[in-house]
Amino acid sequence: MPRRLSAVLSPAEALPPVATALVVDVIRATTTAAFLLAAGARELVLTAEVAQARAEARRRGALLAGERGGLPPEGFDLGNSPREADPERVRGRAVVMTTTNGTRAALRAAGAAQRVGLAALVNAGAAVRWAAAREGDLVLVAAGREGRAALDDAYVLGALVAGFRVLEPGVRLDDGARLAQALFLAHPEPRPLLAASAAAEALAAVGLAADVEACARIDALALVPELAAREGAALRFRPVYPKGV
Amino acid sequence: MPRRLSAVLSPAEALPPVATALVVDVIRATTTAAFLLAAGARELVLTAEVAQARAEARRRGALLAGERGGLPPEGFDLGNSPREADPERVRGRAVVMTTTNGTRAALRAAGAAQRVGLAALVNAGAAVRWAAAREGDLVLVAAGREGRAALDDAYVLGALVAGFRVLEPGVRLDDGARLAQALFLAHPEPRPLLAASAAAEALAAVGLAADVEACARIDALALVPELAAREGAALRFRPVYPKGV
Ligand SMILES: [Ca+2]
Ligand SMILES: [Ca+2]
Ligand SMILES: [Ca+2]
Repeated sequence: MPRRLSAVLSPAEALPPVATALVVDVIRATTTAAFLLAAGARELVLTAEVAQARAEARRRGALLAGERGGLPPEGFDLGNSPREADPERVRGRAVVMTTTNGTRAALRAAGAAQRVGLAALVNAGAAVRWAAAREGDLVLVAAGREGRAALDDAYVLGALVAGFRVLEPGVRLDDGARLAQALFLAHPEPRPLLAASAAAEALAAVGLAADVEACARIDALALVPELAAREGAALRFRPVYPKGV
Repeated sequence: MPRRLSAVLSPAEALPPVATALVVDVIRATTTAAFLLAAGARELVLTAEVAQARAEARRRGALLAGERGGLPPEGFDLGNSPREADPERVRGRAVVMTTTNGTRAALRAAGAAQRVGLAALVNAGAAVRWAAAREGDLVLVAAGREGRAALDDAYVLGALVAGFRVLEPGVRLDDGARLAQALFLAHPEPRPLLAASAAAEALAAVGLAADVEACARIDALALVPELAAREGAALRFRPVYPKGV
């Protein structure tokens, strides 16, 4: 029996218990997470709440990154922008990160799956290879927005489904995976699709439209942030570099 | 300011409060509802529970229709099959109907919107004209399946979005509406798309694959089941025939 690849588009939906989950918040948390680790951050710690992030960063001597309403909370070292992932600032450092939707999605996935990776367009190929190399059923988890399915995340789930089927053509797709895949296949060019999303509109409204361009750079990075440990209510990720096929 | 057209793909998501809602359970409840009224049923009463449906049917001298697990519960006059909508059986009769997902979606919509219509592919054009002729913001509500977004319902939401934009090109779409529309535009032929859905697979498993063909007949009917009254926990629908444009 071929394994099953599910895609959960809405943050309101329950996750099936599975072996492996890939979490997507393409604008911008999982994109930024990949860029931070690619820029040399030693590890990335996700927390749900701002106060918790501050405490974790103090305890670990870590940089503090993230957003509320798209902008960094007071006293944060970095926002949630992939363009801030500067090697001179982050190399060798731990980074504690909290964002509105992405962190919550990662925590949901960690509750349902044995293995969790973070995926975006910038590491889509690496994420697909990472997932394909692991055994058991898989779920793709979209962070979504305001409790609803989001166009940009659904599109990236579709890119992951299409990529995965190149490696495992017989994989069984659920309705969510078919839906996401159809969206991706209908829009081979990611920039206009991402730009049409409510997430991109909200970024433009706070002067961060240029971030969308960084989020659209398919396969710019060859790493996957992989869940290394659950530490209380925090999730610690480290970079892994899946082999080519 | 042009009005807003939202599409809620998942039954797990909250509905925005709006003026007008169209509810879609294409395989099969809203398709069957349209066929029953087209076959001359006087009115259609939706209830959430089987016991409630039995009580309402007794009280109203109505036919009893619906399904659990795809098949009619004991003592029901009709299942949830569009192919059972026979004028010789239903003309002039009231029909009480209860189904797994569609009824629940109609009840959700009735809690959020002032006006509620039932839509499927068989009455997509009529549903779009009905909605466009009413004032205020609109929401398309997919019944979904097992608490998740469903491929078949999302596709019909996309058909409604695309149709609505022919009449009102400036309407503002949310992410769900864009997602659904992309799915529809990528699959102009409904039959293979519907057949790929989990709902169609489940029907095939109980010997009802031929129902999917009936659900795919775009614009076969010119009526919309419109919510006429909330009667306790039951919703009473009557047929309306929107004018052409
Ligand atoms: Ca996002
Ligand atoms: Ca259905
Ligand atoms: Ca149903």
